[in-house]
Amino acid sequence: MSLLVIGTLAYDSIETVHESRRDVLGGSATYFASAARYFHPVSLVGVVGDDFKREHIDMLKNRGIDLAGLEVAAGKTFRWSGRYAADWNTRTTLDTQLNVFERFDPKIPVAQRNSRYLFLANAAPGIQAKALDQVSHPAFTMLDTMNLWIDIAKDELLHVLRRVDAVVLNDEEVRMLTGERNLLRAAGAVLGLGPRYVILKKGEHGAFLLSSNAHFSLPAYPVEEVVDPTGAGDSFAGGFMGYVAEQNSFDPKVMRRAMLYGTVTASFCVEGFGVEALDGRSREEIDRRFDELMTIVSV
Amino acid sequence: MSLLVIGTLAYDSIETVHESRRDVLGGSATYFASAARYFHPVSLVGVVGDDFKREHIDMLKNRGIDLAGLEVAAGKTFRWSGRYAADWNTRTTLDTQLNVFERFDPKIPVAQRNSRYLFLANAAPGIQAKALDQVSHPAFTMLDTMNLWIDIAKDELLHVLRRVDAVVLNDEEVRMLTGERNLLRAAGAVLGLGPRYVILKKGEHGAFLLSSNAHFSLPAYPVEEVVDPTGAGDSFAGGFMGYVAEQNSFDPKVMRRAMLYGTVTASFCVEGFGVEALDGRSREEIDRRFDELMTIVSV
Repeated sequence: MSLLVIGTLAYDSIETVHESRRDVLGGSATYFASAARYFHPVSLVGVVGDDFKREHIDMLKNRGIDLAGLEVAAGKTFRWSGRYAADWNTRTTLDTQLNVFERFDPKIPVAQRNSRYLFLANAAPGIQAKALDQVSHPAFTMLDTMNLWIDIAKDELLHVLRRVDAVVLNDEEVRMLTGERNLLRAAGAVLGLGPRYVILKKGEHGAFLLSSNAHFSLPAYPVEEVVDPTGAGDSFAGGFMGYVAEQNSFDPKVMRRAMLYGTVTASFCVEGFGVEALDGRSREEIDRRFDELMTIVSV
Repeated sequence: MSLLVIGTLAYDSIETVHESRRDVLGGSATYFASAARYFHPVSLVGVVGDDFKREHIDMLKNRGIDLAGLEVAAGKTFRWSGRYAADWNTRTTLDTQLNVFERFDPKIPVAQRNSRYLFLANAAPGIQAKALDQVSHPAFTMLDTMNLWIDIAKDELLHVLRRVDAVVLNDEEVRMLTGERNLLRAAGAVLGLGPRYVILKKGEHGAFLLSSNAHFSLPAYPVEEVVDPTGAGDSFAGGFMGYVAEQNSFDPKVMRRAMLYGTVTASFCVEGFGVEALDGRSREEIDRRFDELMTIVSV
């Protein structure tokens, strides 16, 4: 029943119209694990540099996140900096320094190689495939990607897509990947590429889940004040997969409720910089917002 | 239990990236009535010029729409022309000729003056107030407006808003009206201006309903192929109010289902030019799509 994430840990520098922050703990694996751990124990595979702060290791460990697969390499931790426009929809990347992530070669500890649930966070498809090679017969593998890989490594991406159960994409990515403008048709076309489930993330406009036998559409939780949207997608994925792993079921009802939990963890995420608003919640708080969202969307 | 709409009948010329059409029957009252009549008899108050085609009068009458309040004035019918960009979100108005609508002075037939349900389609707030003056004690009045009136006649608009039960607005309008960027807070602020219900239309991203005791958020129906978005808002309002009038209830459950019916009639509307795809459906077809939408959004 173990839940494993392979992805980045990073120090992000973020500018919004209200505030700027430097060296905020971020990265796809950090966000995913910080959301998923409310539902199920999480193991993390990734790499950081020797500048990665002890307090951040401790913080993750104290949240019950298993760091046996976290490699500390000589050099600097992955760094990203970006700026959000006032409408939050336009994000400009100011700088990306892969640093130790450039030579990342995922090594999954023996104890995690029979993980039942696997999240391949955004990375080069070759790295995702290498990670997948090391896990024997996962029950449910979900993959995230980005426009860069669709652009420069589409063949490798298509190859790894054939091996996963689910993929999370945003509007732009699903259109780029399929050449289809209409989102529903584009998502349908992705089902023809291998995955049994496509999750389409539409940010403030919600998300939808498409499979051969289900179509579920959900508006976003109405956050009163967005502080920093960084990590929303990965914390959505964490809430989604954490709940599925907890329930250990792919019943359509479970998948739909998982979409709500993903929406809830993403909504906490965007209420603070980095994981500061997502972290330190209780399961009761998560469930309270889940119930609120349920009320908002129930017909 | 009568349902009355006061609004425009128009000939629209519409350009999309796929096709252009001239002199398509349109107008807010046409769209509203064409949607609402599937649920409840509708009376229409408006004005057309002497160029308004006999076949269009017959078409509306044949759908059971009561035209006792339709004035035929010397001159030309209201004309609008516009162009949609490839993403459907950008609409450029190329020309507006108010023609006979410029001197529109709504005269509600005696038989309709006790209407229980009243829709004040987009018009100068002064015209909307004049119409409202002639209806005694409606149970439910809903108002639509546009950025122009918020800009040039805000005081009159605020005055008429205090007299209605519900208002339909899009993102831009609710922000302009309240000066609040966050949509949920903006909608909340509108509740302080008089209406008990605010419906926020977000086009392809769905709609939400806010009242002091309810908040319901709904994604749009996933239309496979948009042909012409003109009239989507008015046909949403028609499906919504038609269903509320049919049920003759303001129970929260009824209001939520009404949001689904509005979404369904709007989805048919955008599948053709003018009312061509909305018209000629059966209640069974409407209900089939309602059931489908219900499946898509049910948790």
